[in-house]
Amino acid sequence: MPMTTSPPYDATAGAPALSGTERTRVRRLAERAATDRRALYDVLDSGRICHLGVIVDGSVRVLPTGYGREGDTLYLHGSTGAASLRAGGEVCVTVTHLDGLVLARSVFHHSMNYRSAVIYGRPRLVTDPEEKLTGLRALVENLAPGRWDAARRPTRKELAATVVLALSLDEASVKSRQGPPADDDEDLALDVWAGVLPVREALGEPVPDPLLRPGIGYSK
Amino acid sequence: MPMTTSPPYDATAGAPALSGTERTRVRRLAERAATDRRALYDVLDSGRICHLGVIVDGSVRVLPTGYGREGDTLYLHGSTGAASLRAGGEVCVTVTHLDGLVLARSVFHHSMNYRSAVIYGRPRLVTDPEEKLTGLRALVENLAPGRWDAARRPTRKELAATVVLALSLDEASVKSRQGPPADDDEDLALDVWAGVLPVREALGEPVPDPLLRPGIGYSK
Repeated sequence: MPMTTSPPYDATAGAPALSGTERTRVRRLAERAATDRRALYDVLDSGRICHLGVIVDGSVRVLPTGYGREGDTLYLHGSTGAASLRAGGEVCVTVTHLDGLVLARSVFHHSMNYRSAVIYGRPRLVTDPEEKLTGLRALVENLAPGRWDAARRPTRKELAATVVLALSLDEASVKSRQGPPADDDEDLALDVWAGVLPVREALGEPVPDPLLRPGIGYSK
Repeated sequence: MPMTTSPPYDATAGAPALSGTERTRVRRLAERAATDRRALYDVLDSGRICHLGVIVDGSVRVLPTGYGREGDTLYLHGSTGAASLRAGGEVCVTVTHLDGLVLARSVFHHSMNYRSAVIYGRPRLVTDPEEKLTGLRALVENLAPGRWDAARRPTRKELAATVVLALSLDEASVKSRQGPPADDDEDLALDVWAGVLPVREALGEPVPDPLLRPGIGYSK
């Protein structure tokens, strides 16, 4: 109720149609739908962690994990021991950016500015060695651009120890809420500050590994 | 495989035992388990968005939403129309903080520093008016401390339009990865910068609502 216009429970139920399936059709809050694929790419490419939803033994699990995009494929990974990866069922991947805290004159209209992407699908196990490298490159470059070229590439053994999954972006939706609070007209006269506190992700100064050899500087 | 030590697929499968259930027992990466309840509170109280996993028509959905903690109860909310709220089934709530990008000498050991909390349970619909207010207060105060007192309180009509759910923190786990990269010994001689890029959430300058009456300043 505060934050009714913030990421609501039915964020995906009300999500826009990048695809035409029932789950991603606009049901509510249609004004917030961002319908073009570019918006999807933007949300994904500017994020670092997704929340992966899986069903294990009938129960839902939501796990934070890295990802990377290449074209219309999202790559996920895990060690070969990960139970969630072996399930093989449908998953839901959500990436969310919190852009601002929306402070209204009424508690009821407090909200958040945000952008989020939701993807549904059945991940495909990547077995082709070339595509496996493509997926891992997308993953590490999404974490920190340039590191695929800067760091030592995976060995055959490391590759074998890693599961890479490919998730199609066919069924995906993007939602966004931006702008000032939406107070009721009769509240505008209240003596209460209203507006937005912008939120952003900031990178601090690089902290060198204590084991770093002398003379190796950080370069972005 | 990059980021094998970052939030992995089995983040919850490997999560520590704040509770004694199978899902929250330590299976892997036990060294990363933070076992005390204080750690759980810290992760929750310093976060603003959770990712709520629900099963709707047999499919998993992961939705970003606000939350608030009061004691050992997590409060969630939504409008009364939200389909996900009506399901009544078990949910999984995950709160994640990305603390740093871990750049290793090998692609394989790239990772993320993070803290995450995972809560399982069957939310209870809050019907008691007093508890409903308690939950909403927790929600708005978690968004922006002080706003419950600063802003106009909910009307009876607004209260009626809002669903508040209570989720017990009985079955919860916390995981964390901190510190420098964990490169293989034979890679330490490589001419590759290694270390951590700290990540933090930063609040920008308050942006007043265009409709804000003159003379009302922002005070935290």
